[in-house]
Amino acid sequence: MEGNFKLVLAYDGTDYHGFQVQPGLPTVQGVLESALDRLVQRSSPLYVAGRTDAGVHARGQVVSFRGVLRVPMGELAGRLNELLPPDVLVLSAEEVEEGFHARHSARAREYAYYLQVEEKPSPFASRFVYWCPWRLNLDDMREAIAHVRGLHDFTPFSRLERGRSRHREVMKAEIESWGRVLAVRVKANAFAWAMMRRLVGGLLEVGRGRWTPEDFRDALESGDVARGGPTLPPRGLFLERVYYGD
Amino acid sequence: MEGNFKLVLAYDGTDYHGFQVQPGLPTVQGVLESALDRLVQRSSPLYVAGRTDAGVHARGQVVSFRGVLRVPMGELAGRLNELLPPDVLVLSAEEVEEGFHARHSARAREYAYYLQVEEKPSPFASRFVYWCPWRLNLDDMREAIAHVRGLHDFTPFSRLERGRSRHREVMKAEIESWGRVLAVRVKANAFAWAMMRRLVGGLLEVGRGRWTPEDFRDALESGDVARGGPTLPPRGLFLERVYYGD
Repeated sequence: MEGNFKLVLAYDGTDYHGFQVQPGLPTVQGVLESALDRLVQRSSPLYVAGRTDAGVHARGQVVSFRGVLRVPMGELAGRLNELLPPDVLVLSAEEVEEGFHARHSARAREYAYYLQVEEKPSPFASRFVYWCPWRLNLDDMREAIAHVRGLHDFTPFSRLERGRSRHREVMKAEIESWGRVLAVRVKANAFAWAMMRRLVGGLLEVGRGRWTPEDFRDALESGDVARGGPTLPPRGLFLERVYYGD
Repeated sequence: MEGNFKLVLAYDGTDYHGFQVQPGLPTVQGVLESALDRLVQRSSPLYVAGRTDAGVHARGQVVSFRGVLRVPMGELAGRLNELLPPDVLVLSAEEVEEGFHARHSARAREYAYYLQVEEKPSPFASRFVYWCPWRLNLDDMREAIAHVRGLHDFTPFSRLERGRSRHREVMKAEIESWGRVLAVRVKANAFAWAMMRRLVGGLLEVGRGRWTPEDFRDALESGDVARGGPTLPPRGLFLERVYYGD
């Protein structure tokens, strides 16, 4: 019988051209659909909570689809993982209520950008962190990021997409620190294109002393796409979690 | 003026066909020599302490060479790191005494093999650990590994190489545990081909209850290449350190 299904995924995005299928290029959706279509007779497209860009990772990406399973529900995650490459993992699979839609039902997304403050970059962490050889002023960075909470027009910290609103509501914006590794963690109803990578780019300007926390706030309030921070590379960025009713 | 130089290296070996140059294939030596030959007029081959196999990593590989620097000594490591890809890092560079030779002067090597005991394999750790979905008996594994210390013929835990002695002296053989990650750490005067990967393969047989610690000891003492453990993949293996006078 046809059902509606939800998968939670983790992946190392380094070797993929983003989540969404692009003809002729390896994508996470591409490898996932290849595996899925051996185990499920799908009757809908694959819906995704966050279309991560090329090189961006996920620890809690969510997809949903309708269809008829060819394997018992309890075996779906395990069978998918046997078919998937080692850089993509299904964390859980479940049948969900009729109305559930991975993207439309999502109330919020949480992303984290990981920074490694070291004199030299680690060859073992280089896929997953942005290396910072600079001394960073964490107090100033925390003062700056506090301005991000609430409703803002994130135009200065996004890429231009004509005609699209870039007003987003941020519920959480904080910096975690474990010695030499920092994580900038932001939860928002949705994210504008490149928003996390430019926000963290701006925070690094603050941390390095090239901007004050007030410069960061002024950039955020400017509405000017030229005023935001530099866009950091995707390697440090993870889609951490998607929030639904929970 | 010509000098004798020592580099300590870390690398992610995943994308390399081992350390040693092989025509037409990416190797660590290949990328290192390309960078080095822009900064040094070498007058000797590149000598290496441990010729790591394809996919094996290093946190403390040592190489040496003779030649004339084209950059100040204090800048050599930094300039090399600018030229090297992100998966290879020079940790230190120094001028050493005339008689130093990365391989011949080495008194011992230390390797560690990392295991991750989890229900599901992490897509972020898969390059650097061997995933074990089994419950492991660590006490039995520690009892088994104690037999490895001292002088042994490691034929059962190596690959056949005609005419070569496989007697090696093991100074340290232990298992470290941090929750779900284990490291099997062995220090020996030298290692036979595939020795670490077969030793840990045997220890996993013990941990899973398929061998007793006595079976492991009997295999080690058998001198029979067919009696050792299965050969684990290279991904969990790191050359941790090379010991000289120190």
